[in-house]
Amino acid sequence: MNSRPTLTQPAANGSADHTVVPRFPQQGYAREFVDKRREWVEERTGCQLDHVAACSLDTDLLRGNIENPIGTIQMPLGVVGPLKVNGQHADGEFYVPLATTEGALVRSYERGMLAITRAGGATTRVTISENKGSPIFKCDDVAAAHELAQFVEQNFKQLKAEAESTTSHGKLLRVHTRLIGRDVIVDFSYDTGDAHGMNMISKATDAACKWIGRQFPAQTCYILSGASSEKRPSGMLFAGGKGKHVTAGVRLSKRIIRQYLHSTPQAIGDMWRRTLVAQTVTGVLGYNGHVANGLTALFIATGQDVANVTNSAVAMNHIEVTDEGDLYASITLPSLTIATIGGGTALGTSAECLDMLGCRGTGHVLKFAEIVAATVLAGELSFGAALATDEFVHAHESLGRNRPDA
Amino acid sequence: MNSRPTLTQPAANGSADHTVVPRFPQQGYAREFVDKRREWVEERTGCQLDHVAACSLDTDLLRGNIENPIGTIQMPLGVVGPLKVNGQHADGEFYVPLATTEGALVRSYERGMLAITRAGGATTRVTISENKGSPIFKCDDVAAAHELAQFVEQNFKQLKAEAESTTSHGKLLRVHTRLIGRDVIVDFSYDTGDAHGMNMISKATDAACKWIGRQFPAQTCYILSGASSEKRPSGMLFAGGKGKHVTAGVRLSKRIIRQYLHSTPQAIGDMWRRTLVAQTVTGVLGYNGHVANGLTALFIATGQDVANVTNSAVAMNHIEVTDEGDLYASITLPSLTIATIGGGTALGTSAECLDMLGCRGTGHVLKFAEIVAATVLAGELSFGAALATDEFVHAHESLGRNRPDA
Amino acid sequence: MNSRPTLTQPAANGSADHTVVPRFPQQGYAREFVDKRREWVEERTGCQLDHVAACSLDTDLLRGNIENPIGTIQMPLGVVGPLKVNGQHADGEFYVPLATTEGALVRSYERGMLAITRAGGATTRVTISENKGSPIFKCDDVAAAHELAQFVEQNFKQLKAEAESTTSHGKLLRVHTRLIGRDVIVDFSYDTGDAHGMNMISKATDAACKWIGRQFPAQTCYILSGASSEKRPSGMLFAGGKGKHVTAGVRLSKRIIRQYLHSTPQAIGDMWRRTLVAQTVTGVLGYNGHVANGLTALFIATGQDVANVTNSAVAMNHIEVTDEGDLYASITLPSLTIATIGGGTALGTSAECLDMLGCRGTGHVLKFAEIVAATVLAGELSFGAALATDEFVHAHESLGRNRPDA
Amino acid sequence: MNSRPTLTQPAANGSADHTVVPRFPQQGYAREFVDKRREWVEERTGCQLDHVAACSLDTDLLRGNIENPIGTIQMPLGVVGPLKVNGQHADGEFYVPLATTEGALVRSYERGMLAITRAGGATTRVTISENKGSPIFKCDDVAAAHELAQFVEQNFKQLKAEAESTTSHGKLLRVHTRLIGRDVIVDFSYDTGDAHGMNMISKATDAACKWIGRQFPAQTCYILSGASSEKRPSGMLFAGGKGKHVTAGVRLSKRIIRQYLHSTPQAIGDMWRRTLVAQTVTGVLGYNGHVANGLTALFIATGQDVANVTNSAVAMNHIEVTDEGDLYASITLPSLTIATIGGGTALGTSAECLDMLGCRGTGHVLKFAEIVAATVLAGELSFGAALATDEFVHAHESLGRNRPDA
Repeated sequence: MNSRPTLTQPAANGSADHTVVPRFPQQGYAREFVDKRREWVEERTGCQLDHVAACSLDTDLLRGNIENPIGTIQMPLGVVGPLKVNGQHADGEFYVPLATTEGALVRSYERGMLAITRAGGATTRVTISENKGSPIFKCDDVAAAHELAQFVEQNFKQLKAEAESTTSHGKLLRVHTRLIGRDVIVDFSYDTGDAHGMNMISKATDAACKWIGRQFPAQTCYILSGASSEKRPSGMLFAGGKGKHVTAGVRLSKRIIRQYLHSTPQAIGDMWRRTLVAQTVTGVLGYNGHVANGLTALFIATGQDVANVTNSAVAMNHIEVTDEGDLYASITLPSLTIATIGGGTALGTSAECLDMLGCRGTGHVLKFAEIVAATVLAGELSFGAALATDEFVHAHESLGRNRPDA
Repeated sequence: MNSRPTLTQPAANGSADHTVVPRFPQQGYAREFVDKRREWVEERTGCQLDHVAACSLDTDLLRGNIENPIGTIQMPLGVVGPLKVNGQHADGEFYVPLATTEGALVRSYERGMLAITRAGGATTRVTISENKGSPIFKCDDVAAAHELAQFVEQNFKQLKAEAESTTSHGKLLRVHTRLIGRDVIVDFSYDTGDAHGMNMISKATDAACKWIGRQFPAQTCYILSGASSEKRPSGMLFAGGKGKHVTAGVRLSKRIIRQYLHSTPQAIGDMWRRTLVAQTVTGVLGYNGHVANGLTALFIATGQDVANVTNSAVAMNHIEVTDEGDLYASITLPSLTIATIGGGTALGTSAECLDMLGCRGTGHVLKFAEIVAATVLAGELSFGAALATDEFVHAHESLGRNRPDA
Repeated sequence: MNSRPTLTQPAANGSADHTVVPRFPQQGYAREFVDKRREWVEERTGCQLDHVAACSLDTDLLRGNIENPIGTIQMPLGVVGPLKVNGQHADGEFYVPLATTEGALVRSYERGMLAITRAGGATTRVTISENKGSPIFKCDDVAAAHELAQFVEQNFKQLKAEAESTTSHGKLLRVHTRLIGRDVIVDFSYDTGDAHGMNMISKATDAACKWIGRQFPAQTCYILSGASSEKRPSGMLFAGGKGKHVTAGVRLSKRIIRQYLHSTPQAIGDMWRRTLVAQTVTGVLGYNGHVANGLTALFIATGQDVANVTNSAVAMNHIEVTDEGDLYASITLPSLTIATIGGGTALGTSAECLDMLGCRGTGHVLKFAEIVAATVLAGELSFGAALATDEFVHAHESLGRNRPDA
Repeated sequence: MNSRPTLTQPAANGSADHTVVPRFPQQGYAREFVDKRREWVEERTGCQLDHVAACSLDTDLLRGNIENPIGTIQMPLGVVGPLKVNGQHADGEFYVPLATTEGALVRSYERGMLAITRAGGATTRVTISENKGSPIFKCDDVAAAHELAQFVEQNFKQLKAEAESTTSHGKLLRVHTRLIGRDVIVDFSYDTGDAHGMNMISKATDAACKWIGRQFPAQTCYILSGASSEKRPSGMLFAGGKGKHVTAGVRLSKRIIRQYLHSTPQAIGDMWRRTLVAQTVTGVLGYNGHVANGLTALFIATGQDVANVTNSAVAMNHIEVTDEGDLYASITLPSLTIATIGGGTALGTSAECLDMLGCRGTGHVLKFAEIVAATVLAGELSFGAALATDEFVHAHESLGRNRPDA
């Protein structure tokens, strides 16, 4: 007799069942506990998790990255390249790992990379590298809020000391206040080195805010107001300060465009103009072809915080016919939020993929930013050319899944 | 002697090296070719890809999902629940798979789920289920564009026939035109069933546009104008039509809030109001706590097109103190782009995770939409309560990675 | 001895003075009461209002347009033209009244109009003519809200009857609901004929909502949710439905551009592309050169509700070099909120200015919309050419006020 | 025989008529030329312009404010007050001039002002007072653009000297660059004193850019990129720098709200929350009730550049029930673009209306900013209370024009 409870069945006493996920010693990161927890889920929900079980990672290392672990998911990984980058931090040819399940995506980026590389490579520049936390203070009235704002602006030195007392790596670069009614939003801008930095930022900002709170006991402070635009799309992202501001550009001759992208500068230029108009009247933040695709595939492959695609994919693609009749194409990512240390970057496949780019660990985040921008540029070129030449539908038909209505 | 070329070294003849990723028979999906390709990458870039190699999937099944495959990436998978959902399609208690590397995220969603479940569950409703493609037609002048727009509006029946001739599942629901100068943007809105549908939509729309093109030979058409807001954040997403429009709500008593969220309705209500103001003056589209986190973790676990988080995470969170002093909390996702068939949904861990929710395959996408919304609501509640009670920094400190400045 | 109270002096008893504006019989629209009220202000504030007193309007006619009247303001009025319009409603050459105090503005629009007229005129089309009110209903929970939304969608006929019972002119075209948590936003879209229509819309919508309220007694309704975007800029305006959606376009040869705009298609095309990129990365809604200038000047001259410039100025300017090397320029105004009857349109100078365009009174609003669009297009061309040729600074210097740092 | 050409009649030779507005000596500002020009328009268009002719201004003074003058328009002017302001620049009770044709508007602002004044007055603070111009430089490629951006950042002293050589009043405060592909947007931020300053800014920025151009001969510069958001709504306005950033707040007791606004804190708080949600899901920039109404009426009355309402009306209204059960209401205007000298401020009725506020001429712009903010706050309170109590429709019915469907 099968006694496994169905999911919706109320318990005998009439109250709902509400069985929680079982707890194990030391939060259950040991392999045996991961296995037991997974088996409990299988039992509980009637599913089989064989592939989830095929986890090659040392489960003890998952502590700090996840709770209630039951294994790993797998996503297909492809490689594209070579991608020639002429940056200030990345200089050379790279083979880029992309994790995706969207057929044709890898091939499309590959073709854009070939065009760029044959054209001499993409030039890249990082102009901002910082991250921020933006608490909000509620004060008694507008006058009190104004006073607090002025206090914050005038006491940077002390705020810096308080904030940096909590971290050995982060540096508080500046504070900026905005008075909104009786609230004050304070942007704390940090240099976070090679780390994503939000945990560090929260901790450091919390210390600074607690110090402010001791001077203004009456106020309430919420440590994350959302005004930093972390993991949210906003009109303010183009102002910079949430991650890296990085630009990649390339000049493509008519010949290169014909040979690799099967199009012409004029056709791509016209496509660009019209689709930009279409996106503008749709209220899209920025303009791009499919930046989210490349970013997501790279973020998943390299252990980034993938939810940061939400802000990182706000981008500006600019493709134009030059006076000489060539094409100049660029992509600007004002809010690329990435890391080469911390978070998921050290786990199994993530570390391997960062290694593939020579970007693992300390001192590599700006190099990584430049490679990401050049990768995205490749995708924009290939996508744009496909649109301009009507190849788009065909490519997805021939490379996408061979199934009805996929 | 190591003859492996360095990445940046030009070839002997002074031109760059530009070695492309090797090609294999039938595009190289057989395991041996996947292995050879990966070994080539290891050789070429000097990295080791052992975890990438630990791929449990049948590589032949990767065809249609990726090109140039070299294995799989792995990301930690946790489980949270129970989550009680009172929907029109999802009805019962669920255990939800979340793939993430952000410490504390799973625990935070779990606590929100417990609060919801103990409160009787989240009520969910799906009000729109469709997807769209938005080509743009360039015409000779404003008058010609106006004529084309009128023609399109007047010939829905024929357009439907043309579009649906390419698909056995997709249904063209309606067309809508916008005249922008001498361009016409046409929204083709489809019922795509349980599939994501963009490939189907592109194919069907292409057929319809080719038919329009035969009546108006002078015009140029770009099949994807970007006006559909696919994988891009825009002000138009709240109008619906790009995916599911789904809402989840729950009423929480003071007692539940104290017990599970360690806070009060008033504290959470104040936090909501101030952070909403902060996000509004930042130009954020919609308002939410950290919707992107939950969506991304669920999308990765269940084989969704993760890049669609870019549009799906545009959301509206509403938490308020009721006249009776309780809390009413809701989340509305106007553009949730998901699938239970096609894309990456059938691959190994994805299929298993959909199974865990009873959402694998045909007929389950609306149920899945409701579970996603309820999951996201749990995350919003837990996050909001943490902010309101100053627990946020502490939770990330104790559950996040134990490393400097992670 | 001057006993006039100073503005900041508290009254003798220590409380502030708080003297209200004097009341007169029948709200004081008779000339003598207007004069007395003005004299009271002069006395009270120590200013002289001679020009305000030089009001040529019959003050009794101000009832319904203003309260506490003290006279009129005057603003300089200039005339520009001829402007050739080839529309479906406006067909001919027009002389356009512009009220402004910004030097060079009239001359700039004049030059754009000459270019358009010499090029054969602007082609104009109105594709939408409606206006909307968007109440919001608060319900008990998500399920109740969903029920109310469905009820509204299913009872259009009755809602139409209720709404139209309050008006002899307005027609309810359609209703559309959006479920946001436990709230339902309902868009009531009307044909308002030649009137602006917001008062009519509010009244009709109120009647319809009261009828809904009788079926759902528990809910609360706010008659203006702001979701109509009336007098507010929003990403939704490009979807249409708040006023007229009107487009104007013109093709300009190289010769015309050289002769009237002192530039070339290429120079203007490059200016367009770069400034569009600049505005996009600034988060501007739409793109335009200085549409607000022309609209404001026309709205003030013709007695429009000038605050509606806030939504009406959200626009899309598209200027491009054609394959033949000419320029094709267009402007699209998706939310032009105007009237030829009601509001301020019948007052003195307003009626005269509408007369100047042959647009006074019933049956002329679409003609007026086309003239407005063509006028704005003229301004965009002249402004764009000035930017492209570096004439901008010079023009403002020679035509602007001859004063330091004006 | 009447030989006056009709507007649409082509000339005899088959070409269109194209008669331009007549030119007069010295651009025709003398009264006789203004009259002749107006008579020509009357003749040409068949209208009568008697009220336009009733211009009390000295037409010679219109030079610099308008071209092709034919007289003035008149708009009704009302007065409201007293408005008590407790600012750092405005301190006392004021009577405010509002020019409008929207019935009920003046009465509504008056009631809000009474509530504020009886509650002790609105507290106001100006936190930013500057204005900016934002040219864009096109460079050869990303590397060249990066070089130019760095040059600009490093040569502020010289740029300041160049810019300020063109003006005796304007001060260049700072420059800020953004790299977007191969373009560089440069924000030049100025203190413009009491003037609007855009002409001064254009001239000064032009000088600075010409100096940059001499160092980088290959680039192209457009002096107005639109990135300053002048007269355009954008997500960046809340960052400040385009005009005054000013906040006004007031605390209202239950008693005051009942007596003057006929509502309760709870009702207004609920209205605020729901309409904010509604505006947020509409993609409105900021949130407000009807800020554009008050701003427009004040701008017209006081000779401001009314087109600047487009950016100035982007605002944040925050109304909340306090812990004590009162209401705290505030309005924040991040981009209030106003002047007390230059532009139209010195003309007839404008000067008189500024006098009414004690804000005419040098040294008064911050005082004026505070009065504007307090005025707008009054309008928000009255409008919000009307919505909350269902008075809105009734007020417009009883005070609006007594005509069908106005």
